Amino acid sequence: MTPEAARDDASPLAMICGGGSLPRTIAESVERSGRRCILFPVRGWAELDSVAAFRHHWIDLGAFGRFQRLMQAEGCRDIVFIGTILRPSVSQLRLDWGTVKVLPKVWRAFRGGDDHLLSGVGRIFAAHGYRLVGAHEVAPDILVPEGALGRLVPSERNTADIGLGLELLQAMSPFDVGQAAVVANRHVLAVEAAEGTDRMLARIAELRHDGRIRTTPGTGVLVKAAKIGQDHRFDLPAIGPKTIDGVARAGLAGLAAVAGSAIMAEPQELVRRADAAGVFTFGVRPAGPR
Amino acid sequence: MTPEAARDDASPLAMICGGGSLPRTIAESVERSGRRCILFPVRGWAELDSVAAFRHHWIDLGAFGRFQRLMQAEGCRDIVFIGTILRPSVSQLRLDWGTVKVLPKVWRAFRGGDDHLLSGVGRIFAAHGYRLVGAHEVAPDILVPEGALGRLVPSERNTADIGLGLELLQAMSPFDVGQAAVVANRHVLAVEAAEGTDRMLARIAELRHDGRIRTTPGTGVLVKAAKIGQDHRFDLPAIGPKTIDGVARAGLAGLAAVAGSAIMAEPQELVRRADAAGVFTFGVRPAGPR
Repeated sequence: MTPEAARDDASPLAMICGGGSLPRTIAESVERSGRRCILFPVRGWAELDSVAAFRHHWIDLGAFGRFQRLMQAEGCRDIVFIGTILRPSVSQLRLDWGTVKVLPKVWRAFRGGDDHLLSGVGRIFAAHGYRLVGAHEVAPDILVPEGALGRLVPSERNTADIGLGLELLQAMSPFDVGQAAVVANRHVLAVEAAEGTDRMLARIAELRHDGRIRTTPGTGVLVKAAKIGQDHRFDLPAIGPKTIDGVARAGLAGLAAVAGSAIMAEPQELVRRADAAGVFTFGVRPAGPR
Repeated sequence: MTPEAARDDASPLAMICGGGSLPRTIAESVERSGRRCILFPVRGWAELDSVAAFRHHWIDLGAFGRFQRLMQAEGCRDIVFIGTILRPSVSQLRLDWGTVKVLPKVWRAFRGGDDHLLSGVGRIFAAHGYRLVGAHEVAPDILVPEGALGRLVPSERNTADIGLGLELLQAMSPFDVGQAAVVANRHVLAVEAAEGTDRMLARIAELRHDGRIRTTPGTGVLVKAAKIGQDHRFDLPAIGPKTIDGVARAGLAGLAAVAGSAIMAEPQELVRRADAAGVFTFGVRPAGPR
């Protein structure tokens, strides 16, 4: 760590929080490490439950001016983005003057895929002197580790399905699509795009119920991987107890994510639930340097 | 056409029929051309409505022996496969002796993706002296032509989305996944796998209703393309009036399919409905020889 980075660690960490339980998991991990967190839950996305235990200020998307004032008042310089923020419609944004000034850049960021949106927003923050950090940097204990997380391990057939899923996600990576797919017996059953992982898993359960998927229950794997070249400070693939519930309901054998580039919400609860449901959770050793 | 092929045209055409209205459209087209059709609707998949107007024999998957006897009695040699036949579970097959004899081959065909399954089944039929022909060969008028099919044409932005969708489908092609995707403003909203096109479109409508897709209604395109190297005698991508309804309900601007390698059920009704709903249907000029 550079001396400058070490100094920055003395300032409270600003967390811009979207939906899901990840903000709480990460804030807990950061505060365990001795650093204070100031949460900025985004109205319309963040959930009160996941921020209530921490100092927080609700913000609106589009209120960059207010955000800047709050950051100054709190003495924050480092920012981490956490949780789901769905691509908003432009008409939905409530713009303040601080935002209007950066609007041309925001406009460019809004065109194109998710990576484009997020990295564009990231550049705007960086241009204003903030330092963007990744959740994996401030809370390394939430990264998926290598190997089996719970009691169960993937079978040989599961391992083949994981391999095929990773290859597919890699081939789709330039298109900035999903970060997840479901593969059973070397047959791709679902590919994630705008619906997100939970709904994709619900679809598998539904297709199975309707007889459109006829593999034996306990077959198939949910595979998650970060896009190639994705800036890990934004939108790392995440798994949590809800993912396990979805995997179990979909009748899959388990889930695999690339170790070191996927994060876990509520890791203990995740493992407990996976063991109870009889599904594996596996951290795949990442491929060589890219 | 070779003299042998011309002779074969004198025999009635056997159509193995799955679900949907395509069997009727194709049988009508073939009979208009002067050739008789004998339909073999597959129990559990084919719909009575789409076969009732033609001479037909219901068959069970797995009843290859009975099928061979019927083929001989009807004097058929050419077979075309039409409509949706979902990947069945092995336990669901009711096997007769004719099937049991070819079972080792069927078993191999069952492992792997859809192409594998279909081409494997195709090889079994060919080994028994049948000639497999494609729907596009016996009913060329059902192939999607180049250019706009109805009143409306894609905008420049739609054309960019179509291009991105085709590139994505090409990149995914080796994985034997879907043949369709939805792209809006260069952002991939959905990728088809086991759920099929109709359900993928229903998902877009649902995500829009739930606020998870926030593009303006009338934006985005359904893109369909045959897999690269796919044997066109099996499983060409198909569109029909139901597809148009799905596109309209999903709030998309229109649909594009590769001209010459996608087929249309009820073409007149398809165009009428597209014009009424205000969506375009466009046949994309295929890329150069592959």
